[in-house]
Amino acid sequence: MTTDPNASDERSTRTDEHDERSADATPDDGTGTPADDAGPADDEPEIVDGRTIEHLLTDHERDIASTAEGTDATAAKRPTLDLPRLELGRRDFMKAGAAVGAMSGLAGCTSILADEEGDDSGSAAASGEHKVAPGEHDEYYGFLSGGHTGEIRVVGIPSMRELMRIPVFQAESARGYGHDAKTSQMLEEEGDGHVWGDTHHPRVSQTDNDYDGRWLFVNDKANGRMARVDLEYFETDAITNVPNCQGVHGACMQLPDTQLVFGVGEFRVPMPNDGRDVDDPDEYGSVLTAIDPETMDIEWQVEVDGNMDNGDGGKEGRWFFATGYNSEEGVTESEMTQADRDYVKAFDIPAIWDAVENGEYEEISGVPVVDGTMDSSLNEGDRPIVRYVATPKSPHGVSVTPDGNYAIASGKLDPSCTVIDIEAIAEVDDPQEAIVGQPRIGMGPLHTAYDGRGHAYTTTFIDSEVVKWDYEAAVEAEAGSEEPVVDRHDVHYNPGHLIAAESYTASPQGDYLISLNKLSKDRFLPVGPIHPENDQLFHIGDDDAGLELIKDKPSYPEPHDASVVHKDKIDPAKTWDTDDYEIDYVAEGEESFERIDDSTVEIEMWARRNEFSFPEVTLQEGDEVTLRISNVETTSDVIHSIAIPEYDINLALAPQDTREVTFTADEPGVFWAYCAYFCSALHLEMRSRILVEPDE
Amino acid sequence: MTTDPNASDERSTRTDEHDERSADATPDDGTGTPADDAGPADDEPEIVDGRTIEHLLTDHERDIASTAEGTDATAAKRPTLDLPRLELGRRDFMKAGAAVGAMSGLAGCTSILADEEGDDSGSAAASGEHKVAPGEHDEYYGFLSGGHTGEIRVVGIPSMRELMRIPVFQAESARGYGHDAKTSQMLEEEGDGHVWGDTHHPRVSQTDNDYDGRWLFVNDKANGRMARVDLEYFETDAITNVPNCQGVHGACMQLPDTQLVFGVGEFRVPMPNDGRDVDDPDEYGSVLTAIDPETMDIEWQVEVDGNMDNGDGGKEGRWFFATGYNSEEGVTESEMTQADRDYVKAFDIPAIWDAVENGEYEEISGVPVVDGTMDSSLNEGDRPIVRYVATPKSPHGVSVTPDGNYAIASGKLDPSCTVIDIEAIAEVDDPQEAIVGQPRIGMGPLHTAYDGRGHAYTTTFIDSEVVKWDYEAAVEAEAGSEEPVVDRHDVHYNPGHLIAAESYTASPQGDYLISLNKLSKDRFLPVGPIHPENDQLFHIGDDDAGLELIKDKPSYPEPHDASVVHKDKIDPAKTWDTDDYEIDYVAEGEESFERIDDSTVEIEMWARRNEFSFPEVTLQEGDEVTLRISNVETTSDVIHSIAIPEYDINLALAPQDTREVTFTADEPGVFWAYCAYFCSALHLEMRSRILVEPDE
Repeated sequence: MTTDPNASDERSTRTDEHDERSADATPDDGTGTPADDAGPADDEPEIVDGRTIEHLLTDHERDIASTAEGTDATAAKRPTLDLPRLELGRRDFMKAGAAVGAMSGLAGCTSILADEEGDDSGSAAASGEHKVAPGEHDEYYGFLSGGHTGEIRVVGIPSMRELMRIPVFQAESARGYGHDAKTSQMLEEEGDGHVWGDTHHPRVSQTDNDYDGRWLFVNDKANGRMARVDLEYFETDAITNVPNCQGVHGACMQLPDTQLVFGVGEFRVPMPNDGRDVDDPDEYGSVLTAIDPETMDIEWQVEVDGNMDNGDGGKEGRWFFATGYNSEEGVTESEMTQADRDYVKAFDIPAIWDAVENGEYEEISGVPVVDGTMDSSLNEGDRPIVRYVATPKSPHGVSVTPDGNYAIASGKLDPSCTVIDIEAIAEVDDPQEAIVGQPRIGMGPLHTAYDGRGHAYTTTFIDSEVVKWDYEAAVEAEAGSEEPVVDRHDVHYNPGHLIAAESYTASPQGDYLISLNKLSKDRFLPVGPIHPENDQLFHIGDDDAGLELIKDKPSYPEPHDASVVHKDKIDPAKTWDTDDYEIDYVAEGEESFERIDDSTVEIEMWARRNEFSFPEVTLQEGDEVTLRISNVETTSDVIHSIAIPEYDINLALAPQDTREVTFTADEPGVFWAYCAYFCSALHLEMRSRILVEPDE
Repeated sequence: MTTDPNASDERSTRTDEHDERSADATPDDGTGTPADDAGPADDEPEIVDGRTIEHLLTDHERDIASTAEGTDATAAKRPTLDLPRLELGRRDFMKAGAAVGAMSGLAGCTSILADEEGDDSGSAAASGEHKVAPGEHDEYYGFLSGGHTGEIRVVGIPSMRELMRIPVFQAESARGYGHDAKTSQMLEEEGDGHVWGDTHHPRVSQTDNDYDGRWLFVNDKANGRMARVDLEYFETDAITNVPNCQGVHGACMQLPDTQLVFGVGEFRVPMPNDGRDVDDPDEYGSVLTAIDPETMDIEWQVEVDGNMDNGDGGKEGRWFFATGYNSEEGVTESEMTQADRDYVKAFDIPAIWDAVENGEYEEISGVPVVDGTMDSSLNEGDRPIVRYVATPKSPHGVSVTPDGNYAIASGKLDPSCTVIDIEAIAEVDDPQEAIVGQPRIGMGPLHTAYDGRGHAYTTTFIDSEVVKWDYEAAVEAEAGSEEPVVDRHDVHYNPGHLIAAESYTASPQGDYLISLNKLSKDRFLPVGPIHPENDQLFHIGDDDAGLELIKDKPSYPEPHDASVVHKDKIDPAKTWDTDDYEIDYVAEGEESFERIDDSTVEIEMWARRNEFSFPEVTLQEGDEVTLRISNVETTSDVIHSIAIPEYDINLALAPQDTREVTFTADEPGVFWAYCAYFCSALHLEMRSRILVEPDE
């Protein structure tokens, strides 16, 4: 990469070409999509090929677009930001380092891919048709976040069939999540009693930079929490409420062995946010939170300048990267968009541990908070705990290349990606010097995934594309060059995250990629004013063929991000192991009904095809009842539940599972508890009559 | 149909053949399904080709199977139930009537089908490949119930992609359902405050026996409610809590014009169920409930003997049919399975209206309850309000043929379907004489759908099949004959309901059929002890090719039933019409912040890309805040929300929609309200800072 005095002009020219292409495209551009009947009204913002010219742009861009109205679209030039530039002198150092990384990284990945393809000759994926016939299994698990549904969704790839939902931050009756004592207590206590969440970034635990199938972690942006899903039982088993912070946005982990899970705090608030300093934004802060994956306890937090956003961990465990915006520390949109650059923050994890161990922190809300702001004394000297790498405004996505050499960031307000040399971060005096590439990708670049063959794939929100580019070529090329781009493909429409198979590991599979598109517009049968999103599956395994669109999958709002794991790396349980369960199993013959005192009853019962151990239970109005129930079946997929009408209880019981619930029998009457899982031919007859005798 | 002295023996012989086939099949029967690694343990019930030999059977059958253990499977003979039989003298009358019906019905349906196919030559369905390429639209809307998730799911057919979820009986944050004042009040008041429901039977409104696309109705089996979904906005707009009743199970309507919606009460309870008569099961009752579809008010109820189950309406508006079990009126499983027959109840709707208008009812919980029990004086004389047609034990499904001639019922405990001549019901002295056919279908027949070409398709729960048969041939054939069966196809596994395209109208489309299977076992990648169900799509449009399996679709537990409507019959809104909305829209310029008194604040605001009208709102701790907000966008699919962290609020705002919420600002601090729908490039900057100043 060179500092070319013409680079800025050249970028402008390329922008013009982009605009021209956008303006020429029509809504029905040969993709087979029916035109939207309603079409934009005359006074509506124009939508061209899924790109809103108005409103999707910055204020600055909007002004320019407005000026250009009715004139040649090429006149609507993008603003030229004052991008940080490398000194020429650094280039050779960086190139040398990068080349070594590239050789080892690429060679390793290519051979891994070849080996795996050889083993997969009988699979659906290897058939070349990307089809999964009835009865065949998918090749991959996709774990998609459910956005403001607060759940995780498990999708099979390449069929894109939704295999399961895992409720995380909200109660859900089909699985009885939040209905039994354990999960309702977790939501109430660790979950701080909130009834919903906003899951964004599901990440599967790794060992030695590969998926180990133990856990999935996911954030709650709405209420500042982090949750863990047990991938043996596909059930949320821990929630941690994160203090000193509002909106845990990014979620990722320290690699190679999931030593820590990181929650990237977004919104700046007073610390703690208990009513102090509400009118004094200078006192607000934003923190990175490190959580122990085993205990889910918070180890420490690091306060930084500005709002943070997404994050990713380096492969060797030293660095963690977070993007951010609002370096202005403004509190309104206009205040937040004054500056022309923001930062990627590189957290030096061992240095932070040292600070914590040396007592260089302030304890806030019971958590050690280390000062990682720019002016902190901990950021002076040779070993700053946080290095601030200036990038074009509002870098949004950041992800580390499989070889561990680069962190690649990009943001919606600049058409380039920023390639940061990870090894260089510790070596350079000025963090800007670690920037070794800045290829021009397209309008609104957000997130980047990898195929293990040296390619990066970046979504462009405004252009509505996935852009494939060569990241080593980007290091070689001039800043602002489009030459590293090797392919681009329309998506429908306005993509956020994208994910390639095992992109977050050291050895991506390189065959499939999903673009999570925010708008579906007219791609599906209309279903009212709330549209589904559109998750599009691409095959990327053939570099000659380029990006191949395989499927459109409508998704209930709003998947944000995903992890894709090969099926051989997940080993779910088929029935519960009673040793894993914290409460005692009730075997046949062990059922009991015990009246402890005038108003306390304990019931231990079991369920099997087609009966509950007690066909009848008599209670007195006002009784406090603790009911424990086991499914004594040992056959996989024979699930029961006990649904108690009017009492808002439905405990789902997989084979060998035991659940408990406590309720007050405050409504007199007859209540037929029934099994809500259609379990056998006599399923309808499976019930227990609960008689609540009235208090005289 | 004749009374053949050998018919009973012949049925036993056919049963033996079935057993033999089941026992010979292996789990991996050439369908490409990987064998279940875990396999059944030695002490587990044997599962053969998805059929559990143990436990799925009746007590009687289980005894026989146990005796036959280790011997030739053909020795495990099914019990021969003492089925009701027609008198020979009725046969000719019935045949003559049926033949006329068949001629008009079949001819009409065939020509309708041909016309529609002619128009559909460009559609995915007509391409013969049943594929929906990216960007193409599906041919049908499938509305599937979500079982104990309490929701409705909208699925595209034939792609089987889930297009949307419609929350009905539970709050849901992505759509803000239960978060805004209108929907939270509906759940709290009309919905009786329950937090979950168990949806079973989604039915779309009809005019002149065809779908009119106005509404969808669905029951709540758990808490005895009925809900209405507005198919313009795909949103639940009314819930009715049904008294005198526990478990509204079946749901269906009076045809041809949706004059009434019926909820079929299942569980027998005291009326009202307020603590009286808890120990006196003789006083329990079960009711059919008739609801006005416009007002959702309850018009009347009819009390009957025994538990009811599913229902369907005749095409001409006079009769409504409900199946039932527990004619013994027992309270335990063994008491409920003593008798060898139960009843299909035929409700004479005009006669019931007459009784109500004549004041022949008792008012219970404010509802006129008409006595339709067997011993009621209203069932004496020429025009009984309910006719009890005895069938083999526990008839479960009942559905009326498209020509309106027959109601076909079947239940898991007898291998036959019962064909009831609807015209005959009013004419015969003994309701048994209206039974005109009783073909042998297979083990555990549950539900029946139609193709409009004279074929019925019945699911067999124990055999795990969809069985195609000719219902006019069944009227011609001897009771117990298997001759009317023209095709059968394995499903995977244990199907409940099935639905064919527009099967509930007078003119089914005849091309697609979905079997809703309760177990998926090893059909999909394993996802822990809670398995998805498996909804299998078949093409049934080619009678020569027979049933053709197209797709397996995993489904989150637990879809029960569905309605399938051609895409041209649904016309959803793309944005909200502010005239349709009950609260005032807030246009740009109309925003206001008003402090009413020391502790009451009213905020009217709007949202658009990328801002809320108020970048900042200052409240005092303890303020009672009413917030009304409009999305002022006019472009389809540009959705916003206002998510308020820590306050458990997320109001989804489709274009032109307005929502309101009232909350108490009881937590001091700074709370960044944000938009949870990724709406534009500056989506992340779209927020409003809510300052709650502490009470000093």
